[in-house]
Amino acid sequence: MSEIANTPKPPYYAVIFTSERTEGDNGYGAMAEKMVELASKQPGFLGIESAREGVGITVSYWRDLEAIKAWKANSAHQVARKKGREEWYSSFRLRIAKVERDYGL
Amino acid sequence: MSEIANTPKPPYYAVIFTSERTEGDNGYGAMAEKMVELASKQPGFLGIESAREGVGITVSYWRDLEAIKAWKANSAHQVARKKGREEWYSSFRLRIAKVERDYGL
Repeated sequence: MSEIANTPKPPYYAVIFTSERTEGDNGYGAMAEKMVELASKQPGFLGIESAREGVGITVSYWRDLEAIKAWKANSAHQVARKKGREEWYSSFRLRIAKVERDYGL
Repeated sequence: MSEIANTPKPPYYAVIFTSERTEGDNGYGAMAEKMVELASKQPGFLGIESAREGVGITVSYWRDLEAIKAWKANSAHQVARKKGREEWYSSFRLRIAKVERDYGL
């Protein structure tokens, strides 16, 4: 289960991925798990948070734009992204944002 | 139910609020609904996305930092935030981030 990511002091980057799924699993669950595992091993990866309740929101955190770009270019990730566009998501929005401040409890 | 927010062309701001709840409702559900309704009426509010699955992630979008600051200072919101810290959340992290790029399907 997803937890609150223990990110370092800002600045760093967030990739906010909000999606709506198509019907049925169609291999999505296994691939999503694999992608989280793979992303976690990339240089500059800082953490990930995820929840789905109707809409799905996954926020991954990265050291800088270069790290995000390298992950986007990862070949296994490219295969997953293609399947996402073609099969798994009826719609999505991906936003790249620079985290300037944070605080917590 | 939450949907994907139809935000304008970047730049704009995202407030990423990730939380873990304490046991029981304790008035949380009604207040959360009221806060979404109230936030939606604030100047500079652009949209909101929310999902809870173990961890809860709510991302609200705002025109600029001034709009975020004004919402933070809203008196009804201040009452809700105090209850959140004291009763509803066992832990949370709030991140303020500038959305630089986005794309979707």
